[in-house]
Amino acid sequence: MPARPLTGAPVVSQLHDKIRSLLASLPSGTARPTLALLIPGDPSALAYARTIRKQFRSLELEVREFTLEDCLDIPSFVTLIKQLESDHSVTGILALQPLPSAIDRHTLSHTMPPTKDVDGVSFEQQGRLAVGRPHIAPSTPLGGLILLRHYGVDIAGKHAVVIGRSPVVGRPLALLLLAADATVTICHSRTTNLAALTRQADLVFAAVGHPGLVTPDMVKPGAVVVDFGVTVVEGRVVGDVHPAVADVAAALTPVPGGTGPVTTAVLACNLLRLAGLWTGDDV
Amino acid sequence: MPARPLTGAPVVSQLHDKIRSLLASLPSGTARPTLALLIPGDPSALAYARTIRKQFRSLELEVREFTLEDCLDIPSFVTLIKQLESDHSVTGILALQPLPSAIDRHTLSHTMPPTKDVDGVSFEQQGRLAVGRPHIAPSTPLGGLILLRHYGVDIAGKHAVVIGRSPVVGRPLALLLLAADATVTICHSRTTNLAALTRQADLVFAAVGHPGLVTPDMVKPGAVVVDFGVTVVEGRVVGDVHPAVADVAAALTPVPGGTGPVTTAVLACNLLRLAGLWTGDDV
Repeated sequence: MPARPLTGAPVVSQLHDKIRSLLASLPSGTARPTLALLIPGDPSALAYARTIRKQFRSLELEVREFTLEDCLDIPSFVTLIKQLESDHSVTGILALQPLPSAIDRHTLSHTMPPTKDVDGVSFEQQGRLAVGRPHIAPSTPLGGLILLRHYGVDIAGKHAVVIGRSPVVGRPLALLLLAADATVTICHSRTTNLAALTRQADLVFAAVGHPGLVTPDMVKPGAVVVDFGVTVVEGRVVGDVHPAVADVAAALTPVPGGTGPVTTAVLACNLLRLAGLWTGDDV
Repeated sequence: MPARPLTGAPVVSQLHDKIRSLLASLPSGTARPTLALLIPGDPSALAYARTIRKQFRSLELEVREFTLEDCLDIPSFVTLIKQLESDHSVTGILALQPLPSAIDRHTLSHTMPPTKDVDGVSFEQQGRLAVGRPHIAPSTPLGGLILLRHYGVDIAGKHAVVIGRSPVVGRPLALLLLAADATVTICHSRTTNLAALTRQADLVFAAVGHPGLVTPDMVKPGAVVVDFGVTVVEGRVVGDVHPAVADVAAALTPVPGGTGPVTTAVLACNLLRLAGLWTGDDV
């Protein structure tokens, strides 16, 4: 029996319903939560900016856009962030990747104010994650957990194997899974026995950007497989998981249409959390 | 053949030699690096304070002591930390555990200035660890890695299993091991197949405070076992690893005399790093 497809659309729909209902409860005349969106010139950033703009506007969330020129230097970037920090009409700030070359990740993490850090890149938000008390977590890995919860997949007590240790997906994902009481193994390019480890996993998470990396022989029958891979091959977006894994796994997120759309919806949830509208631990 | 005992004393001795040589290179009349040591009334904190005082003074590092009363509230704690932050004669600040009951870990992480955070408890230092770029790491887990490096134990590419996920040892240890290119599995109270996981490990790290938790059948012959356990049983300090593990493991840190003494020496190294005297990645 082929794996159950864990599609993102119903998850997005449920998150959007909750966002609309929270916004509807605001007194009339209240300012809408507002995202400051910092957009570098890279085509992938421009494409993601279009997705965010469209989805946020459909939710009646405000998006204010700023172009990051390739030649942007650190002082100008810091000045912009400080202006947005002190601007009371701005709820959250998102700087899309890849940033202009002068702006390294350390500068971003150091400069981003934790109280407006909609994607959990600041040292404070990362530090909360590191000690097991996440507040605003990065939207991509958090979306993966929300997707699993939506489909009733248990995480506590399960053995989760994460392939990839990027600061954007793999590392925060491992910390979120740990906070959700999974036993977590983190694998990466230096791992020598990847297949032996993934074959033990109840939950496999792939986040490396290596098409077809996870093959059927690497997956335990009945495991749940979550694919964060996004690679464009001959004009098509493909994930890290080989399609034949569907013959072995109990459930599998498709690419495209799995974790990807949930990421943008979780960004909107995070914005509402920064605005104090979304409380509790359900996202 | 019984396991090689990985004792802390030679590691401490080597670290102290380096500290003395760095201090000797300071121009005469230069102020010594100074630790502000915040001491709650708990007996274990008082005992650790004595160890730090003795070891730091033998290295001619300054220790300035502050008593934390049981009734200390958050505003008074924040005021004290801010005073120490702006005091140019203070190089680093260490607040010993357990803190007075009103001071939760979140307050500590939020208040501690990263530039004077000698034990890596601030959100910024934890966040650097979370994204794989540690700067000042918590002294206990960092000491474990330094001890292994001292004895020539490879970490990169090895499978490390960490038992325990406290924010003081287990979690930062897992992140340090990941930054050192190990494949890392983090186990804890919700793990269902602990022995099956530890038996696969090249390196086993125990940090739960459960005497005798790690038994010989849980260890792969030839594995290296590092014990962070500190439990007082009938007046003796015992670790998390059963003594019979010495018949199976290739190497084992003794308790007492293994990771414990290295922790205090690493605190001194961290103080020199905050003072800008210790550079590079060797600690």
